Amino acid sequence: MRQDALPPAFVVGLGLIGGSLVRALAPHTDVRGWSPGEATRTAAAADGFAVVDDLRAGLERAATDDALVVVATPVPAFPAVLAAVDETAPTVRLTDVASVKGLIADQVESLAPRARYVGAHPMAGTAHSGWAAGSADLFRDAAWVTCLTEDSDPDVWAAVAALGLQVGSRVVPTEAPAHDRAVARISHLPHLLALALAQAGAAGGDLALSLAASSFADGTRVAGTRPELIRAMCENNRDALLDAVDDALGLLGVARGSLASTGSLVKITESGHAARTAFEQRGSGLEDVTLSGDDLVDQLLAVGAAGGYVTGLRATDDGWSVAARYPADND
Amino acid sequence: MRQDALPPAFVVGLGLIGGSLVRALAPHTDVRGWSPGEATRTAAAADGFAVVDDLRAGLERAATDDALVVVATPVPAFPAVLAAVDETAPTVRLTDVASVKGLIADQVESLAPRARYVGAHPMAGTAHSGWAAGSADLFRDAAWVTCLTEDSDPDVWAAVAALGLQVGSRVVPTEAPAHDRAVARISHLPHLLALALAQAGAAGGDLALSLAASSFADGTRVAGTRPELIRAMCENNRDALLDAVDDALGLLGVARGSLASTGSLVKITESGHAARTAFEQRGSGLEDVTLSGDDLVDQLLAVGAAGGYVTGLRATDDGWSVAARYPADND
Repeated sequence: MRQDALPPAFVVGLGLIGGSLVRALAPHTDVRGWSPGEATRTAAAADGFAVVDDLRAGLERAATDDALVVVATPVPAFPAVLAAVDETAPTVRLTDVASVKGLIADQVESLAPRARYVGAHPMAGTAHSGWAAGSADLFRDAAWVTCLTEDSDPDVWAAVAALGLQVGSRVVPTEAPAHDRAVARISHLPHLLALALAQAGAAGGDLALSLAASSFADGTRVAGTRPELIRAMCENNRDALLDAVDDALGLLGVARGSLASTGSLVKITESGHAARTAFEQRGSGLEDVTLSGDDLVDQLLAVGAAGGYVTGLRATDDGWSVAARYPADND
Repeated sequence: MRQDALPPAFVVGLGLIGGSLVRALAPHTDVRGWSPGEATRTAAAADGFAVVDDLRAGLERAATDDALVVVATPVPAFPAVLAAVDETAPTVRLTDVASVKGLIADQVESLAPRARYVGAHPMAGTAHSGWAAGSADLFRDAAWVTCLTEDSDPDVWAAVAALGLQVGSRVVPTEAPAHDRAVARISHLPHLLALALAQAGAAGGDLALSLAASSFADGTRVAGTRPELIRAMCENNRDALLDAVDDALGLLGVARGSLASTGSLVKITESGHAARTAFEQRGSGLEDVTLSGDDLVDQLLAVGAAGGYVTGLRATDDGWSVAARYPADND
């Protein structure tokens, strides 16, 4: 079913995320794509998708169509893309799918300040990358984070949210700093711990690796991600990640001290088990609510902060009616 | 196919590991079981397995049959079981399946010193426990660690190894201290890191848990293990675990310092990725070898230390011919 607010889209970058988005959107809206790589453009066109050969021509067309421009390049390529947006389609509707949001918001503010921007981050991925790795199902049941400020235009947010809903995601409204703090803890810290665990395990030599079973395999899985991808995520979210690392170092240091002095790990085992249980039970007790009105942005932010998410959008005479899931005990 | 050296067995403790062992062995050898819990004994008997109602009667029968006694109780119950062995079946063939081996070897030495003991540790488990959770397939393709000393009797080792081979495991010979150092790194440290990660993530609140995806789910999975089981493993392997934790803290501390001062995570990402790759490639390049002779124990220890394992046993006129897999470049 096509989302009401779904705009035409121009996807800049056809790697895993951009390529999956083109595949997922093409049956439902007019979607074009561009990649700096000629081989990638050729592959996408050969697969039957609409590809433009020139970034600026694509941006001009997006401006004409009032399409949503989705920047899906690696983070280092953002400044050049945003400069092209500002030159060619300065007031276009703009979003992106980068895994850090404060940095990108700052870049948009300085390089494409007239763009109508609402940043996004689909919490989906695989160990693979590139056009060929993409899949129309990549975003199904994932969180599609949308970043609002008090100045955000609800209409632009609705277009970005419609994109996420169309590809099967839960749309989570939040603010960029809150997003960055959260992903530092649930994505970037897990990568650092996996890297450290892989090394501490390998330092045990051939016997240790020979004995390693599922606890080590699971705990180190994301250490298999390409180092440059981990660096791009983590180094661009430095301050929030430092806070998260310090928390983890503090918890481990206390546990180490307790084990050394009293022989007991009661505190970390019980608190950690309770935290894992909270994770397993997240999303339970959510109820359907409908949001609307002049303070829609505030209502959306309250939903995201409480662990809720948006499930649908409907245009009304005076704005948007938003269906969401929200914890019952926060009502 | 029945292993040549497979002895009759008496399994003391019918939880996940003991219960799985009874199920896996019953088609191939005479196996009896005992549990301190009457309900467990009733359930095992109802499932068609041979259950004895009294620990001492079972041990007496094991001595008569020259059965291998397998202690599969929780670690805190070991002293009582070993005292019963020493009273009732003092020179019986004895093994165990506890996840720490130095501590158990010390307890056997002091409480059942006449027993012919070779400790073992099957690297298998699930999140569940108890008789009902058991499965005859639990040990398939797992490492079955066997702990030797220079005084070990090859005949007793062969009986313990035959048990592991019969249930489908790779039999890894090593010494108890080396086992304990290895599992500190590839099993106990992963549990501590998972517990710390679960807490650091939950400290990010409902938004963070709502955004958490596979990296967090995988990295915290074993934090869902019952706290008392994690404590039993980790607290009983204190010294080795402290070394492993200190390694991890050191690696994370250096990465934290680098991120804070230079913004770079190049070192931990590249070293961690290389370590994960080494784990993924473990066991490649192994070749079939045959071990035999007076220095069999030394040969077995060399196989385990190099990441190899035993795949078969055959009795010969003057001892054992042991089939193993061993790295080609160590020949």
